[in-house]
Amino acid sequence: MKPMGTIPADFAGTPLTIAGRSAADWVATAGDTPLFVYDMAAVEARIARFRAAFAGIDLHYAIKANPFAPLLAAMAPLVDGFDIASGGELAMALAADKPARTISFAGPGKRDDELAAAIEAGVTINLESAGEATRALGIGDRLGVTPRLAIRVNPEIELRGSGMRMGGRASPFGIDADRAATVARDVIAAGADWRGLHIFAGSQALDARAIIETQAATMALAGRLAEEIGVMPPLVNLGGGFGIPYFPGEVPLDIAVIGEALSETRANRSAALRDTRFAIELGRWLVGEAGVYLTRVVDRKESRGETFLVVDGGLHHQLAATGNLGTVVKRNYPVSVATAAAEAPTETLSVVGPLCTPLDRLADRVTLPVAQVGDLVAVFMAGAYGVSASPTAFLGHPMPLEILARHS
Amino acid sequence: MKPMGTIPADFAGTPLTIAGRSAADWVATAGDTPLFVYDMAAVEARIARFRAAFAGIDLHYAIKANPFAPLLAAMAPLVDGFDIASGGELAMALAADKPARTISFAGPGKRDDELAAAIEAGVTINLESAGEATRALGIGDRLGVTPRLAIRVNPEIELRGSGMRMGGRASPFGIDADRAATVARDVIAAGADWRGLHIFAGSQALDARAIIETQAATMALAGRLAEEIGVMPPLVNLGGGFGIPYFPGEVPLDIAVIGEALSETRANRSAALRDTRFAIELGRWLVGEAGVYLTRVVDRKESRGETFLVVDGGLHHQLAATGNLGTVVKRNYPVSVATAAAEAPTETLSVVGPLCTPLDRLADRVTLPVAQVGDLVAVFMAGAYGVSASPTAFLGHPMPLEILARHS
Repeated sequence: MKPMGTIPADFAGTPLTIAGRSAADWVATAGDTPLFVYDMAAVEARIARFRAAFAGIDLHYAIKANPFAPLLAAMAPLVDGFDIASGGELAMALAADKPARTISFAGPGKRDDELAAAIEAGVTINLESAGEATRALGIGDRLGVTPRLAIRVNPEIELRGSGMRMGGRASPFGIDADRAATVARDVIAAGADWRGLHIFAGSQALDARAIIETQAATMALAGRLAEEIGVMPPLVNLGGGFGIPYFPGEVPLDIAVIGEALSETRANRSAALRDTRFAIELGRWLVGEAGVYLTRVVDRKESRGETFLVVDGGLHHQLAATGNLGTVVKRNYPVSVATAAAEAPTETLSVVGPLCTPLDRLADRVTLPVAQVGDLVAVFMAGAYGVSASPTAFLGHPMPLEILARHS
Repeated sequence: MKPMGTIPADFAGTPLTIAGRSAADWVATAGDTPLFVYDMAAVEARIARFRAAFAGIDLHYAIKANPFAPLLAAMAPLVDGFDIASGGELAMALAADKPARTISFAGPGKRDDELAAAIEAGVTINLESAGEATRALGIGDRLGVTPRLAIRVNPEIELRGSGMRMGGRASPFGIDADRAATVARDVIAAGADWRGLHIFAGSQALDARAIIETQAATMALAGRLAEEIGVMPPLVNLGGGFGIPYFPGEVPLDIAVIGEALSETRANRSAALRDTRFAIELGRWLVGEAGVYLTRVVDRKESRGETFLVVDGGLHHQLAATGNLGTVVKRNYPVSVATAAAEAPTETLSVVGPLCTPLDRLADRVTLPVAQVGDLVAVFMAGAYGVSASPTAFLGHPMPLEILARHS
């Protein structure tokens, strides 16, 4: 038997209920499995926790984490900005009625057509290179629109213990810290609408001390750059990096501690940042725990003494849960039998999807209540980087359904 | 500098030509990048090599490797069967005008609606469990259609050195060899149209000796099962497992040697298989080398002494090339600058995609001809498990284009 991650407290009851209704109810409403249910109250609870911990700091949502249209529409009025990463996400953010001036566009390899659409819409572009700065200025000239430009910085800072380190090394992301001020001065001199700095050192960290240190170093770097640039940045995006506990033994982040430390760091900031606003950009932390992926048991089988529950969902919708995106070792996300009663007997088995590949394993030798064909299996931590980060066309299965759940 | 795999001989010229036309020409025809070009002549050459090596053996195409509709339509008359893995692939196979009696459907977790569609169409179902056998018989009864049923066997055989081992262990795939005959006898007794056996021990093997041993063991197992079952299987699908060389140091498989050995193995088969036909099921080997993924350079940048070419394609279309599907270590697929002249000077750099994740790296510190913004970069070995096995919605980028290339 192998351990699995802890089910988020939002969904601790047995049998599973989401926003006051049973899993079977949500499947009946949506019409079929596999189904992603996103609990809006769980998202709102995290936004409230952020607000309580980070008074005076803007909250941005990185929509790449989950761009489901009803979720974006619900979040748009609750957060201060949307961060986007492509022309497609630009269209999604605007469709959610987020004002263009609250949207910023980061990402290496922005194509000319994407830059043009963003500049025309009045979105802030976080420049990733000197070449991109030149292209953005040229496109602004051609369109007769003053581009809103910020500099994404590749910091000399590494977020310790983060799932994805994005700073402290040669990188396609951002302009090296030692060249950032030059590019900033150049775009200001060229007449751009100067929006400030974007400094992102890593993601998915569960160590509050590491995040506190990184934020302090980021604030110091922003101060040095602002001094060098000589024009106050209207906004400094301090990045995100707040992780969520997917796996056994992981502990949720104490964001109150981070908020207190940041408050002190901000109080002691460089005078060059006196009137600057600060933002934290979060994706996974806001929505990851709010999502539940519901699949139906299609078959139960024994093979050489092991039991397999074969479900109708899998790797094609939840690539990360099968251990195939950015992880080396397969560890178990929290899963449950959503239709099982609290007192059900348990058994040890693996939960596998319908794809013809051994990679399609949602849970490896976990202990769960006994389930039969027709029962529903829930995979938790499914609110971020689920359907949008999975190979949905793989083996020709239908797209999963998605639904935004609200208490009625 | 890190090495990369060898460019397939089909595309060895400089600058790159595909089916007699330049890469830029194909992009102009398709309209944009990123673009997958599949060279039909390269596919036909592999089918011809198979026919020369395996006289009297059926050739099945596992359409999961690449279900692009024009490719399926072109392959349908050239192979003896299509192997499918979902209701969606059933629709694709029928749309390609492949007769239902030449289609077989394998995969754990076939839903009732998928089984019904397949039985109604007259497709052979490779049963993965006793439970699935019961469901298929029940659905046949309900529809008033005699189901065409075969047994997928989980063999006590492991394909040594294969990229994905699918036999020799507890598995969701197939019915354990020691129970397969019982299930076969049961479905025959229940009046099903008995189609035979499907035995798949692994995939992506580059060791001819290992494939020869596995085919011999598979033939022996099929003989024992046929004797136990007491009714001759009309067809035995011997599986596939033929690999292609993605990475540095890998050598193409010598299939002539495998064909000779199989011919001898078949000559000595059990009398219980006397009138049985045999099939080999190939996906990747037929189409993988025939595909080229063309992306355009959007940016060139230096960071801390390293050079990055940022292109408009990446992980969202070519997940496996970035080392994020079933591999632990990132190794380099063959890549080239498609628009570079033979005598161009070279440099060492990394090729990265437009996604905001360090996972989006198509080539790590390779030596390539110097390229500028606007040049085309080709990623080879892109004909199998490319667009259909990648998270195409990730970060909101458009779907890639695809085109079937033929000499005009």
